[in-house]
Amino acid sequence: MKLLGARYVLTANSKFSIIENGGVLYEDEKIVEVGEYEALSSKAKDKSFYKDSILTPAFINTHVHFEFSKNSGEFCYGSFGGWLESVMSNRGEVFKDANLAIKDALKESKKSGVGTIGAISSYDMDLEALLESNLRVVYFSEVLGADTSKLKEQVDNLAKRLETSLAHKSSMFIPSLAVHSPYSISPELLESSLNLARNLNLLVSTHFLESKEELEWLEKGSGFFKHFYEDILHISNPKPNFSIESFLEAFYDLDCLFVHCLQADSKLQERILSLGKIISCPRSNLLLNQKMGLNDIIATDGKSSNINLNILDELRASFFASIAKSETSLDLEALARELVKSITTKAAHALRLENGSLESGKLADMALFSFPNLEGIKDIALHLLLYAKEAQSLIVAGSNRI
Amino acid sequence: MKLLGARYVLTANSKFSIIENGGVLYEDEKIVEVGEYEALSSKAKDKSFYKDSILTPAFINTHVHFEFSKNSGEFCYGSFGGWLESVMSNRGEVFKDANLAIKDALKESKKSGVGTIGAISSYDMDLEALLESNLRVVYFSEVLGADTSKLKEQVDNLAKRLETSLAHKSSMFIPSLAVHSPYSISPELLESSLNLARNLNLLVSTHFLESKEELEWLEKGSGFFKHFYEDILHISNPKPNFSIESFLEAFYDLDCLFVHCLQADSKLQERILSLGKIISCPRSNLLLNQKMGLNDIIATDGKSSNINLNILDELRASFFASIAKSETSLDLEALARELVKSITTKAAHALRLENGSLESGKLADMALFSFPNLEGIKDIALHLLLYAKEAQSLIVAGSNRI
Repeated sequence: MKLLGARYVLTANSKFSIIENGGVLYEDEKIVEVGEYEALSSKAKDKSFYKDSILTPAFINTHVHFEFSKNSGEFCYGSFGGWLESVMSNRGEVFKDANLAIKDALKESKKSGVGTIGAISSYDMDLEALLESNLRVVYFSEVLGADTSKLKEQVDNLAKRLETSLAHKSSMFIPSLAVHSPYSISPELLESSLNLARNLNLLVSTHFLESKEELEWLEKGSGFFKHFYEDILHISNPKPNFSIESFLEAFYDLDCLFVHCLQADSKLQERILSLGKIISCPRSNLLLNQKMGLNDIIATDGKSSNINLNILDELRASFFASIAKSETSLDLEALARELVKSITTKAAHALRLENGSLESGKLADMALFSFPNLEGIKDIALHLLLYAKEAQSLIVAGSNRI
Repeated sequence: MKLLGARYVLTANSKFSIIENGGVLYEDEKIVEVGEYEALSSKAKDKSFYKDSILTPAFINTHVHFEFSKNSGEFCYGSFGGWLESVMSNRGEVFKDANLAIKDALKESKKSGVGTIGAISSYDMDLEALLESNLRVVYFSEVLGADTSKLKEQVDNLAKRLETSLAHKSSMFIPSLAVHSPYSISPELLESSLNLARNLNLLVSTHFLESKEELEWLEKGSGFFKHFYEDILHISNPKPNFSIESFLEAFYDLDCLFVHCLQADSKLQERILSLGKIISCPRSNLLLNQKMGLNDIIATDGKSSNINLNILDELRASFFASIAKSETSLDLEALARELVKSITTKAAHALRLENGSLESGKLADMALFSFPNLEGIKDIALHLLLYAKEAQSLIVAGSNRI
């Protein structure tokens, strides 16, 4: 058994207990006990205590497109339509020789304390790097295709990719399925894909109502996406394949992550939350759509629409933006705790994982952060959120990953 | 003559011209000419061109308290009153052996491209480090004291500190004066201090209407500051020394920087701007007062109320918070340009300096930033703001400072 202790152990359990001079006892990949370091000390041979550190659950980044890691501003920000057109023009260049950029993006994730990644993969270009990363990976094979004349090819391709992904299945690599969006898939391909998910009990993710362009398309069949299909994809007389409700209905019996949902009003948010979870990517959402989102579960999105994959930078941006946006005075420690939950417990629950909090029986996924001076610090979650730089240690499934 | 060229030269001149394959020709501490690199090439022997870089004016951080550089969260955030009480309790510890922290804070400033600092000094603890920093420093000797029984001592002390500061006067070190705030100075000490500023033609800075606590004190003589004077400073029956207007009137013929002004409505902002400039510190203001401020001229404030002195992190926080706060859709490149101006041209104008833009006759203060790929990038100010990491080169008064 091993014991890791720190001046503060932020458990992120249901009470959000923070244990001063706390310790986490673990064996192999699981946590055995959490409590005061001294009290646990006799139970472990291999033990260490960090008096200038805060120990947290390893963070969970639920939505990243690693294949776009080479982008550093070649895509246009400010509006979703402008961005999507720039992606269509430049993605070839961004995909080319992207391996090093993918590895760097993974390093950046690790440094910020991320132990689990929800990776959306369009072409399996990131598969090898993710398998080698030593991180816990929920691997969403993404499917899209609105052209039903290619349906058989699309379904076969997805089945083949899932077969490859399933061959790597383990507690560290969890094959899953992503449906790109309601504006980019045919009802037939959606049905086939979701049936695969049902049969294989896969978690599902989909982009949904990210932009006002998407809302206008689904509701009225007009606007940017009409132009996009007519002028860029050369489809004559294009029509939306779904209404908001008919798309949502398709997921009725699945565990689904609905990503962004910026254009959902509170009533629609409620409907979405009755079906699954809502994931927000604050900086990506602000850059592309100038909106903040629900921020219940926070992810960085890929470098296709973000400046980096540092989840702490993401929380800090969300923290300052949330205060600026709020009309009323906020309890900053409470805000910090909500943000920490958004990348630990809530994210773990969304990904159907047994990590995200430091409790006995949970997976031993932990991140340790050092600080120059913890003497007299009262607001631990706020301190972590504001001052954490690089993880000094990242443990996933009981093993050190940095 | 020397020539420094880059793929893009962001001049920050009145037209905000950005020159592709541009160059800045300079001699000693001044810029001679700005234009296309090739056209200027024959005029310089010492020349270099950076094809993967953006060249900008060196940034200007108009308001920093370096003496508090050792603070890393020991002070409480969330409300101004709570923060001020925590400063009173912990500042002794934060001041102790702060030299290394001050030097580190200066390094952090330099790395983010800052060439000029407006340093507010309460005790001259930062004087030596600032003189050794090789940065351009506007050195504000700060005065406070509400107790008129100590007036002579207060005036003498200020005169002595200014004498020391004036002994170092040069184009790189500009002695100036800071009045702490209307809640912490007597009318007599304010008058004496401002008369010194008049006689010596010193630029003046003052904190003003930072908190709702200050507003309540000046308007009603009640609230946190009544408690503060009675219970912490043990002054019986305390009264405010100024009304908002009587404090402002004292500065009628001086160049003054009014720092924060979060509690000024638009009419009062207009009155303040008729007398001087408004400086905002977005992250400090959000942490202490949960408000954004005018953001016309942006500074980091000290580490007493900010997580770091990286002016680029400050701009990025302000950028995302501004978008989140805005009800309408913003032009992101235009927003980025305004933010760049807030730490270049506008800041230089506020500090009465001949830098902050790359134009002939201006001081040769420049920062160079490298990027992985500038091919096809259209929004140069936005790209700089989002993706700039560390300055690869920082030139102040024509000499390299990194």
